[in-house]
Amino acid sequence: MSAIEKGNGVLTLINVFDVEPSNQGRLVELLIEATEKTMKRMPGFISANIHRSLDGKRVVNYAQWRSRADFEAMLRDPKATPHMQHIGTIATFDPIPCEVSEVIMAV
Amino acid sequence: MSAIEKGNGVLTLINVFDVEPSNQGRLVELLIEATEKTMKRMPGFISANIHRSLDGKRVVNYAQWRSRADFEAMLRDPKATPHMQHIGTIATFDPIPCEVSEVIMAV
Repeated sequence: MSAIEKGNGVLTLINVFDVEPSNQGRLVELLIEATEKTMKRMPGFISANIHRSLDGKRVVNYAQWRSRADFEAMLRDPKATPHMQHIGTIATFDPIPCEVSEVIMAV
Repeated sequence: MSAIEKGNGVLTLINVFDVEPSNQGRLVELLIEATEKTMKRMPGFISANIHRSLDGKRVVNYAQWRSRADFEAMLRDPKATPHMQHIGTIATFDPIPCEVSEVIMAV
C-alpha cells in the first residue's frame, strides 16, 4: 500500500503513457519489469503505482521519490535509460514531476 | 493520508489539467473549493489528491471513488457540473478513469 501525503518533500512523478489498446497489457508488464529489476533498488525510490485506463488507451505510473534530488539522480543514472527506450517502442509518454498540494478525504 | 492499493474495486480518476503558470495557484484553489463544497459529500467519494507540477504548467487531481458506479453517478449529478465549467475558464483537462494494476514498494 502506497500513501499520498502533503508536506513530506516527496517528489511525485505522474507519467501518462499513450498506447494502442492491444499493447496496454504488455506496457503494464514492461513497467512492472523496469520497476522490479532496476527502479526499486535506486536510492530514494519509494513506490511505483501502475494504473490501466478503462478505455485501454493509457497507462499511468504514479511514482514516488523521497526528494527531488533523488529523482534527478535517477534521471542521470544510465541503468534507467534502456527500460524507457524499450517502452518507447510501443508507447509515447508525458512525465509530470509534481508535489502534493492538498489531500482531501471524504467526510 | 490517502492509500493506493490493488484489487479493492476503487475507480481512480487521474485528471491532468493544462494551465498558464500564472493561473496554477488559482486552479489548485478552485479544485480544493470544488472538492470541499461538493465532491467530498457525494456517495462513494474516497479522496482527492491535488498535485502541482514543478514547471507550473500542470495540475493533476488523483481522485478515488469507491466504485465505477459511484463515479458514473457523480458524472450525472448536476451539482458536479458548475465547478468544472468554472475551472474550464482557466484550464483544459484530460480525465483518465483507471484501475490500479500494480503497487510496487522499495526493497
